[in-house]
Amino acid sequence: MLELSVAQVNSVTYVFAATIAAMGGAAIFFAMQRSEAAPKYRVVLALLSVVCLIAAYNYRILYLGWTEAYSVVNGAVKVTGLAYNDSYRYADWLLTVPTLLVVLVLVMDLPPAKARLRCIVLGSQAVEMIVLGYPGQGAPDMMTRWLWWMVAMVPFVIIVHQLYIALRASVDNQPPAARGLVSAARFLTVSVWSVYPVLYLLPILGLTGPLTFAATQVCYALADVTAKAAFGMLIYTTVMRKSEALRADGAEVAPAVAAMARA
Amino acid sequence: MLELSVAQVNSVTYVFAATIAAMGGAAIFFAMQRSEAAPKYRVVLALLSVVCLIAAYNYRILYLGWTEAYSVVNGAVKVTGLAYNDSYRYADWLLTVPTLLVVLVLVMDLPPAKARLRCIVLGSQAVEMIVLGYPGQGAPDMMTRWLWWMVAMVPFVIIVHQLYIALRASVDNQPPAARGLVSAARFLTVSVWSVYPVLYLLPILGLTGPLTFAATQVCYALADVTAKAAFGMLIYTTVMRKSEALRADGAEVAPAVAAMARA
Repeated sequence: MLELSVAQVNSVTYVFAATIAAMGGAAIFFAMQRSEAAPKYRVVLALLSVVCLIAAYNYRILYLGWTEAYSVVNGAVKVTGLAYNDSYRYADWLLTVPTLLVVLVLVMDLPPAKARLRCIVLGSQAVEMIVLGYPGQGAPDMMTRWLWWMVAMVPFVIIVHQLYIALRASVDNQPPAARGLVSAARFLTVSVWSVYPVLYLLPILGLTGPLTFAATQVCYALADVTAKAAFGMLIYTTVMRKSEALRADGAEVAPAVAAMARA
Repeated sequence: MLELSVAQVNSVTYVFAATIAAMGGAAIFFAMQRSEAAPKYRVVLALLSVVCLIAAYNYRILYLGWTEAYSVVNGAVKVTGLAYNDSYRYADWLLTVPTLLVVLVLVMDLPPAKARLRCIVLGSQAVEMIVLGYPGQGAPDMMTRWLWWMVAMVPFVIIVHQLYIALRASVDNQPPAARGLVSAARFLTVSVWSVYPVLYLLPILGLTGPLTFAATQVCYALADVTAKAAFGMLIYTTVMRKSEALRADGAEVAPAVAAMARA
């Protein structure tokens, strides 16, 4: 176990507590506001709510693990000997990362066949990326870490390419009120996701002390909050604007009423 | 207690944590999206939500039992002496397995009398299968284990036969948009369920070491996630397609509109 300072232990504890609150709050907000979206977009808010709930649960486990491993007694850090298991994150990511990509595709209103294809390609690449990242993340041997990092970067680059190139046309097809937001969500995803491979690399670059360790925990939490709760708020706003536009067009009419109007 | 390695203990812990998240997430997703299905299918999503919630709860118990029995202290596995009770699974299965079969029947839109009969036959066989499997699962004596395995295989074979032969005609009667999905759900059920009798047999086949033990825990969890959450997503998609088809036909009219039409 690393010798952490009281300030380092406390910083991680506070950030984890705030992360649980942010993720849990976002989960409940999306669940409550889901009914205000047009029916076709409700699934998007349901998925976002589930993602944030899983993240809140994951941070609860990390928080408990952290506070059990390091406690502050009489003004000094006491290392209990219990392991702090960072790798829980992979269990969360395996479920939430493919779901976030599905959310991004669903909000773009692609034709059904195209949307299905994009969901399958992006979702399976995301699973591959996380599964391939796992074996290296706990490896004490830096060569092993490098190797898995490089292997996991292949699906990462494919995802970024898909988001940037293949979905660019879809962004241009968005209604004016939503175009900027969809583009921002796509940009946010790519930029915040780039933080993860960098954090993975730190030990290889020789950064292994207590400060780096604590800072890495904080950075992961901030990246997760941005990639899930903040990304979710962007998507939420997009969905609400699109729902409003649908209502204004009168396109959002119950089918039965539409049938009556035709008669 | 078996002497497990740190990697074995951690793998089971992570897989259990991910299972709780996947089941809990699925439960909440089905509950939220339930209102989007046509009224006749809402019961299907309610049942799926309950099944996943029970499974999440069951895995929470297994997770706590596992981490209380094995903890990692100073980089080594510490066996606390507390028993890890695997047999909790049977309490879960007794409730969820018959319910999953009822879900499969309900989504097929059989005539009411026929649906009732299938639910009774499949549900009661499922209960029988689980009750008969229980006495052998913890038996140290391999002859006892064999005996109960063989007895429990009778209802298992009846269920598989029912799903394969008796429900084949119902699959052919599905609307084209749902036929492939219903068939896939039936196939998934039969194939993932086949994993359970194999895992039950492993100790009889002489596989009893720590690796087999940990791998069995992981395999049960993966099979449960597939049989409940992944199966649930297939059924969810089926139900949504069928609801859409009903709406397009104008058969699914909002109650207020129906009242207007009658006036």
